Amino acid sequence: MPRFITVEGIEGAGKTSCLDLLEQRIRQRGHEVLVTREPGGTPLGEDLRQLLLGHRHDGMADDTELLLMFAARAEHLHAKIEPALVAGSWVLCDRFTDATYAYQGYGRGIDLQRIAALETWVQGERRPDLTLLLDLPVEVGLQRAGRRSTPDRFERQALTFFDRVRQGYLSLAASAPGRFRVIDAGQSLDQVSRQVTATIDAFLDSADPG
Amino acid sequence: MPRFITVEGIEGAGKTSCLDLLEQRIRQRGHEVLVTREPGGTPLGEDLRQLLLGHRHDGMADDTELLLMFAARAEHLHAKIEPALVAGSWVLCDRFTDATYAYQGYGRGIDLQRIAALETWVQGERRPDLTLLLDLPVEVGLQRAGRRSTPDRFERQALTFFDRVRQGYLSLAASAPGRFRVIDAGQSLDQVSRQVTATIDAFLDSADPG
Repeated sequence: MPRFITVEGIEGAGKTSCLDLLEQRIRQRGHEVLVTREPGGTPLGEDLRQLLLGHRHDGMADDTELLLMFAARAEHLHAKIEPALVAGSWVLCDRFTDATYAYQGYGRGIDLQRIAALETWVQGERRPDLTLLLDLPVEVGLQRAGRRSTPDRFERQALTFFDRVRQGYLSLAASAPGRFRVIDAGQSLDQVSRQVTATIDAFLDSADPG
Repeated sequence: MPRFITVEGIEGAGKTSCLDLLEQRIRQRGHEVLVTREPGGTPLGEDLRQLLLGHRHDGMADDTELLLMFAARAEHLHAKIEPALVAGSWVLCDRFTDATYAYQGYGRGIDLQRIAALETWVQGERRPDLTLLLDLPVEVGLQRAGRRSTPDRFERQALTFFDRVRQGYLSLAASAPGRFRVIDAGQSLDQVSRQVTATIDAFLDSADPG
């Protein structure tokens, strides 16, 4: 049975390398894999992305933004993720609904229950089978993502925000330990790769015994 | 206390004349009135309208379309309707959530409970205080809207669709008799005007006694 796997983490956590590695290991076991990301590369998703970017700063209501994000997610699920799973392909997604909880919920303070209501409305019972959370200190992540090492005022605000996001991700992981694997992404790249490989191999063994 | 009034009905029912008349009568009583329509003339609403029109025929999922419609509604409420009511202005809106029930729900067969869940999520307790439903036979409406009198195959399908919408509106009215007033829009324009005037005058008397 094909599995739906997501990778989460703040900026600079190393999601791209992680996704590459996961894709490789899953293919080596002979599974098809769709690698995707929100808004999912549908024409509608791209238009929505432009619309979100274009209006984010002119005071769009929180509710509006959340509905647009879930509209893109509904289309992504309908047009790409569900058909791939039905066709027997594994799906590997760069961020999913956990990111909405972490960034909009924990980061910006939008009521988590309101996010949960839309999650259920859009996804029904669909949840990732496995989520790798790449966790590391915010300062390290931002440095790796190419930010300056001495933060100015705006960047200090950003640090506080990203720290709420990080703590949010950790809370999500703690509340769903069966689904989440927390990877210590503050280690050397080599150590991170080993931990990711061990995690996916164990998951593949359990998904695909024998 | 300012009131939120909506006008509903199928194509050709005469909503525009009705809105003009309502605006006049309400202003004559000394109330401010905001006359608006979905998607509400916000820049985001206009962009969403383009996006809905541009993608409606390339197989957008029903869920996606519903989320986009309610995103536009959330923004309309947040940016125009609620601020107007707070400022003491009455609000007169050309179609609102009843149209989503009638067209998407009854017309296209989308689960009414799913629409209701989004309605509550977006609007909380906010509902129109008064809804005028302009009801008339579909054939008469489409003729008034300038359609041919002898329908071709596509137009016959359209007739069936609009008839489901009409019956849907009537069901909605029957289930909320305190809020709805059904106007017989198949009468002469003069008779319709008289019925609309009597309806709004009675409502103004009860809203604004003395």
